[in-house]
Amino acid sequence: MPQGQPLTVPDDNLTTRQRRNRPLLMVHTGDGKGKSTAAFGLALRGWNQGFDIGVFQFVKSAKWRVGEQSVLERLGALHTETGEGGPVQWHKMGSGWSWSRKAGGVEDHAGDAAEGWAQIKERLAAQTHDLYILDEFTYPMGWGWVDVDDVVETLANRPGHQHVVITGRRADPRLIEIADLVTEMGNIKHPMDAGQKGQRGIEW
Amino acid sequence: MPQGQPLTVPDDNLTTRQRRNRPLLMVHTGDGKGKSTAAFGLALRGWNQGFDIGVFQFVKSAKWRVGEQSVLERLGALHTETGEGGPVQWHKMGSGWSWSRKAGGVEDHAGDAAEGWAQIKERLAAQTHDLYILDEFTYPMGWGWVDVDDVVETLANRPGHQHVVITGRRADPRLIEIADLVTEMGNIKHPMDAGQKGQRGIEW
Repeated sequence: MPQGQPLTVPDDNLTTRQRRNRPLLMVHTGDGKGKSTAAFGLALRGWNQGFDIGVFQFVKSAKWRVGEQSVLERLGALHTETGEGGPVQWHKMGSGWSWSRKAGGVEDHAGDAAEGWAQIKERLAAQTHDLYILDEFTYPMGWGWVDVDDVVETLANRPGHQHVVITGRRADPRLIEIADLVTEMGNIKHPMDAGQKGQRGIEW
Repeated sequence: MPQGQPLTVPDDNLTTRQRRNRPLLMVHTGDGKGKSTAAFGLALRGWNQGFDIGVFQFVKSAKWRVGEQSVLERLGALHTETGEGGPVQWHKMGSGWSWSRKAGGVEDHAGDAAEGWAQIKERLAAQTHDLYILDEFTYPMGWGWVDVDDVVETLANRPGHQHVVITGRRADPRLIEIADLVTEMGNIKHPMDAGQKGQRGIEW
């Protein structure tokens, strides 16, 4: 267990309190399981501290996160009802985003991803949330659907005290460079490799 | 995103349904962050499916999990109040366990760990929970406070449909061998390496 003792004292002219309160950019990458799950586990902790939480799911299918969405939205409702914890917003890129649901028409994943990022930029500028979870955001970054340099510059210069977690495989080196915490989830053994199918309560 | 398609079809004479419903032994190991956080994220998912969840914290200090404990116990209370989700029990090895709180006396961590494992064995035999989280259990295993062969045999032969997640560094190879899913959380970059101290909402 880390007991909160840093290995080195940085030469950054910050007080311990300032360092303690520094907003973090966290990246969960690698081929193994647990990247998103750990991000949502972090949301639990943030909710308990009263953080305003915004989740942005950059995936076409929302099939795999219904459990977390259901519970985190329930916790957000609990905040509204009783004042416990913090508020939670969950936005997913299905056919368009919840703030601009399109009426049918042509699917445009690249456009949707760019729109999602534009929305997040606005919220970062307005300091809307305390914790942002950009789930599977490495994919639109990797596919060129959003501009990586813009993402990196925006995140590096975000105002105030906003924590950001980004999940997904193959995180761009420029993102790794500016991140405060990077965990690589490595796949040592996975039941699907042995023919096991996904199941209730584990995969969703 | 895995879409639930196994890479191979195993020669185990099980139907897809039987394989789908197979209980899993999961291990989150490695030096990086996210091992316990991902386990508690999994608990979110399980709670949403109505799982009966038992958490057993094999750590001396409970300082670092108060956020998760608070939220998961709140979810357990919500189940009692409204029937939503599933029940949650959270047991930690502080000075003894909650089921046998000692009145002062000599601290005996090895004895407490063995007692915790004996309790878990009883519960596995009685099929008490649907999901067991044995947080930081690799340490008492590594220190010889519990018998690794007994742990491995008990887990491998547990009855019914009980999922188990074990977290902690340096998981024993015998445990890895019988596990269905093993994720290694690798530490690519950690804020404490750069002098950052732990902070509210992130570390607790």
